[in-house]
Amino acid sequence: MRSAQEPNRNGGLMTPSPRPRIQSQFQSTVSVQKNRRFNILILVFRFAAFCFSLASAIFMYTNSRGSGSPQWYHFDAFRFVAIAAAIVALYSLFEIGASVWEISRGATVFPEVVQVWFDFSHDQVFAYMLLSADSAGTALARTLRERDTCTANNAFCVQSDISVALGFAGFMFLGFSSLLSGFRVICFILNGSRFHM
Amino acid sequence: MRSAQEPNRNGGLMTPSPRPRIQSQFQSTVSVQKNRRFNILILVFRFAAFCFSLASAIFMYTNSRGSGSPQWYHFDAFRFVAIAAAIVALYSLFEIGASVWEISRGATVFPEVVQVWFDFSHDQVFAYMLLSADSAGTALARTLRERDTCTANNAFCVQSDISVALGFAGFMFLGFSSLLSGFRVICFILNGSRFHM
Repeated sequence: MRSAQEPNRNGGLMTPSPRPRIQSQFQSTVSVQKNRRFNILILVFRFAAFCFSLASAIFMYTNSRGSGSPQWYHFDAFRFVAIAAAIVALYSLFEIGASVWEISRGATVFPEVVQVWFDFSHDQVFAYMLLSADSAGTALARTLRERDTCTANNAFCVQSDISVALGFAGFMFLGFSSLLSGFRVICFILNGSRFHM
Repeated sequence: MRSAQEPNRNGGLMTPSPRPRIQSQFQSTVSVQKNRRFNILILVFRFAAFCFSLASAIFMYTNSRGSGSPQWYHFDAFRFVAIAAAIVALYSLFEIGASVWEISRGATVFPEVVQVWFDFSHDQVFAYMLLSADSAGTALARTLRERDTCTANNAFCVQSDISVALGFAGFMFLGFSSLLSGFRVICFILNGSRFHM
């Protein structure tokens, strides 16, 4: 590979011979294909994170059954679950758009260095936030089971449990995305490019 | 710098001239000193994480006031807080030992590649665990305030709150350590050494 850029022994730069150019094109095609497959994997994880966190938010936001019964917004932890899930859903939607853009056009939305660091840092922060919200939600849901709330309004408790469980699933897929975007950061630092070859 | 290893134009390898050797020794000394300062910074963060998580665990474990009053081990979330804090305290103690070993002997406890990845991965996992535990603890503590538990046993609630707050402080310092150990992983990938020059 290196021979294509190597200076001529007589002094000047040679025009590359046909063989290295074909090799280089082949290598580049393989690299683009691998990168494409990697991007599709990220897209799948982002889509899963989006679906689960959106479902978690919807389950929580619709968890009110008329006056007299408990409302989700009366509990801090459930409010936290709903807001965190909604933020992660919005972020995942944006990242899905960015992934589709990258797969279709072969270029990142922001400059490459900004994009890889943006993805990784936001994945990390939002993963911590979602985990924190769902842990708080779990603790509250368990406490509610010990009180009369759940005997009187079982549907409310079941729906909260489902919302929190969906949130944990969203966290899992966000965690996977974070691993992949961390890998892209390392590739970028190593090669100066998000391509991992 | 490169001239020290450059092959002689006549064919064989030249013995390096005195000037590059001095330069190289100087550079190496600067690198060792910077690495030492970096290690001391990690050590400070580890020590802070150890103190806060140990204090959090102790505050939770001692949070029982005779029969009749609530005990910490009756609440799942508080058990989680106590166990997570104890695990992080043990891990931090081990890492303090590893840091002191590295500063005093100039070598890592495990082989270098194992050490940098071990530190980073465990920092990440334990940070997630501690955050999750303390979020659950916060949610439970808030719920207890709304019940009669805290009016009858205010000291119990205050001590739980302190334990959870100390846990969050421990998480913060563990997060800082995680950033630094992540930086060391990147240095290792870039240079094949944990030294950041």
